[in-house]
Amino acid sequence: MDRLSATLIAEQALVDIAAALGATLDGTSEVRITNLCTLEPGEEGGLSFLAQGSYAKHLCECKATAVIVNQRQERPEGFEGTLLRVNNPYEAWSKALDLFGQHVCWGSAAIDPTATIHPSVQLAPGVTIGAGVEIGAGTVLHPGVTIYPHSIIGENCILHAGVVIGADGFGFAPPSKAQDGLQKIKHIGHVILGNHVEIGANSCVDRAVVGATIIGLGTKLDNLCQIGHNVQIGMHCVLAGQVGIAGSASVGNGVQIGGQVGIAGHIHIGDGVRIGAQSGVHKNIEAGKTIMGSPAVEASVFRRKFAASNMKPRS
Amino acid sequence: MDRLSATLIAEQALVDIAAALGATLDGTSEVRITNLCTLEPGEEGGLSFLAQGSYAKHLCECKATAVIVNQRQERPEGFEGTLLRVNNPYEAWSKALDLFGQHVCWGSAAIDPTATIHPSVQLAPGVTIGAGVEIGAGTVLHPGVTIYPHSIIGENCILHAGVVIGADGFGFAPPSKAQDGLQKIKHIGHVILGNHVEIGANSCVDRAVVGATIIGLGTKLDNLCQIGHNVQIGMHCVLAGQVGIAGSASVGNGVQIGGQVGIAGHIHIGDGVRIGAQSGVHKNIEAGKTIMGSPAVEASVFRRKFAASNMKPRS
Amino acid sequence: MDRLSATLIAEQALVDIAAALGATLDGTSEVRITNLCTLEPGEEGGLSFLAQGSYAKHLCECKATAVIVNQRQERPEGFEGTLLRVNNPYEAWSKALDLFGQHVCWGSAAIDPTATIHPSVQLAPGVTIGAGVEIGAGTVLHPGVTIYPHSIIGENCILHAGVVIGADGFGFAPPSKAQDGLQKIKHIGHVILGNHVEIGANSCVDRAVVGATIIGLGTKLDNLCQIGHNVQIGMHCVLAGQVGIAGSASVGNGVQIGGQVGIAGHIHIGDGVRIGAQSGVHKNIEAGKTIMGSPAVEASVFRRKFAASNMKPRS
Repeated sequence: MDRLSATLIAEQALVDIAAALGATLDGTSEVRITNLCTLEPGEEGGLSFLAQGSYAKHLCECKATAVIVNQRQERPEGFEGTLLRVNNPYEAWSKALDLFGQHVCWGSAAIDPTATIHPSVQLAPGVTIGAGVEIGAGTVLHPGVTIYPHSIIGENCILHAGVVIGADGFGFAPPSKAQDGLQKIKHIGHVILGNHVEIGANSCVDRAVVGATIIGLGTKLDNLCQIGHNVQIGMHCVLAGQVGIAGSASVGNGVQIGGQVGIAGHIHIGDGVRIGAQSGVHKNIEAGKTIMGSPAVEASVFRRKFAASNMKPRS
Repeated sequence: MDRLSATLIAEQALVDIAAALGATLDGTSEVRITNLCTLEPGEEGGLSFLAQGSYAKHLCECKATAVIVNQRQERPEGFEGTLLRVNNPYEAWSKALDLFGQHVCWGSAAIDPTATIHPSVQLAPGVTIGAGVEIGAGTVLHPGVTIYPHSIIGENCILHAGVVIGADGFGFAPPSKAQDGLQKIKHIGHVILGNHVEIGANSCVDRAVVGATIIGLGTKLDNLCQIGHNVQIGMHCVLAGQVGIAGSASVGNGVQIGGQVGIAGHIHIGDGVRIGAQSGVHKNIEAGKTIMGSPAVEASVFRRKFAASNMKPRS
Repeated sequence: MDRLSATLIAEQALVDIAAALGATLDGTSEVRITNLCTLEPGEEGGLSFLAQGSYAKHLCECKATAVIVNQRQERPEGFEGTLLRVNNPYEAWSKALDLFGQHVCWGSAAIDPTATIHPSVQLAPGVTIGAGVEIGAGTVLHPGVTIYPHSIIGENCILHAGVVIGADGFGFAPPSKAQDGLQKIKHIGHVILGNHVEIGANSCVDRAVVGATIIGLGTKLDNLCQIGHNVQIGMHCVLAGQVGIAGSASVGNGVQIGGQVGIAGHIHIGDGVRIGAQSGVHKNIEAGKTIMGSPAVEASVFRRKFAASNMKPRS
């Protein structure tokens, strides 16, 4: 996927990276790293990280060339890459991001000269577009829209006033010593919006840590929605106002999400799911289900519970 | 109401409109349509639409000259206008909006020369004001406020930084063929803010499909509120932060709404109602009630339920 | 605290203030007021107000020189200042704010010449900075950020696109006569952000009525958060997206708050508390607790209740 190469900075020898991170190598050291990547699926030449044991299952099938892990992590069957063992994987990942990092600098121009903007794009007053951004034909950017560097916006999209695409996701490494404070995890990924995507006023779509936060073809977001880093949303979904989706959640195609819904990080919402307003979704949802409540349950269960709770207590 | 004439584009013969929509006429065809209008109450010369059977009750008293309906809709007693029968009322309505439509184009100026702004209005840096906007005496617009075309802002209003007035409401017609994707419903209505309205930072008030989204005299909104298309809010209401009101809901006078409350579309909240923080309101509420919870119930019921749920289960 | 002196306008004789407010004096009248202040702890030379009986307990230890109270308020033991008795304390306070008030006027410049901005600060396009603002070394302001007058931003802060610091808090006095409408309470306080604070895109931090809204060293806010007037947040806290904290709440150090949480006004959240996503917190929480639900309860209680509610009703 050529367009993503904007996030590729340079290749580095794994032994140099390990030295910089204070990591011990478990596996081949004679390889070069060309990019940072996510654990699932990972990629040839990529460096990823595993911070919490609950994601260890993804390691078996991970295609990354190397993965940062903690000292106690066992080598899983099926994983052929190199493990970089460290005391604090979050902190090491943060340093790795520095090694491959980009610096957001807006300069003084509202439209960075390195951005690639189709001549048919409509740019309202107050729009700011960062370095390396690409915007497809027929897209409309309303006043005050901000597109952070390296975001990719499809064709015939509409971004309403105040929309922010590609701000840093919300990720911080706990410090080794408490007094040092939280350590910001650099976000060198970006955002990809498919064609015919519409984003409501003052909504935000955060850039990925690595890789991309993706919103699929034809999906529509209402105002004041929050889409976290590395979220993947499929095609033709509808998100009503003030919905929030936490980092690394994935949403299938044709999903309908009511107003003020919250979706937890790292879960999957299947195709065609319908979620009632104000629901809180904390686990995977199978395709085709209709759910509501916080925590969300199937609609029939929710209605029974609500009816039961309205009965007078038996005396 | 003369000021609303900004949304009137041109009059067209009903037979021409029917031909453009592929509709069959049931009733007089020898009339001209001067405007699009809402079903309730409708207006002489207006064209409206009925998509869902549950709104059919409004058709009896609708004063519109013509209404788009589906093929199976019976002619209700009392309605004297013409029915335009189509296979997909949403799609036909979307085309009708095109026929009467306006195109949002910001040009390069931050203040459109066709806007009517009282000389006493204070405009901070970064404000963008679209075509045909009217702003009354003494109003203050803080930095980065965006006023979409044809919005009407009263006197002595305060719009805090980042407020967006008049962005398109969130409405899409399901496609006839799934692969075509959702079809955007044009919003040719506008927003009217009464005098002494205050809107908190980064809040959004969407324009109406047709007619107006209205916020009444002296009503105050806190930050990050979302007001959907065609919502009507009365006088002297108070909406705390992050409240969301879905399309076509109406709120009476003197209503107090706590933070993060969600109000469903097409319902009515009576005068003087008080709604506890984080409530979800899904049905009409009588004047004077105090409600809380999601779904919201009367406060006394909510407190009893919460107390009961805290009791240990009987073993 | 010298930097706060920006809010000090002039000193006035208490008798003149009392006359302007229509107040009767209970206590020494031969004093001068140099500032407005909060009730707790209050300060020498300060004028404060007590509107609701439930805060009367703070009056005993209040160090303010004078306090506006209603006609029935008893003089508490321990309070040595002067009481100013009025019929409507909210209205009188609003007038007092006028007497000491400032007028927000942006002028035509995006950066007010009276602002003190360290040369290392990065200012993106579309940033607006009001009078008297101070911004420390190494801080980055992304596009469209608005800093209202007299805000103080620490060193090495990151404010993402569309952030609004220092907009008026949400406070209105009920009118003496209903037809007069709500009376805006002037906010002459400001906002202080400590060093290493990061604020997510389109989040809002309101200015204080008097004194300051404070966010402590190293605290991180995600996108679309709402922080009300006079809120105090400690050090190294993490607030996920769309969190709302109502006026005068205080949050300790190292607190972790999940997405879409709401925290009521005037309550205290102890150090190290963890709050589950979508919780609604309406009362003080002791240090170290983990809570969830709306209304929030301890996590273990919440889980038991949710499990119980999923059981089939006994027949």
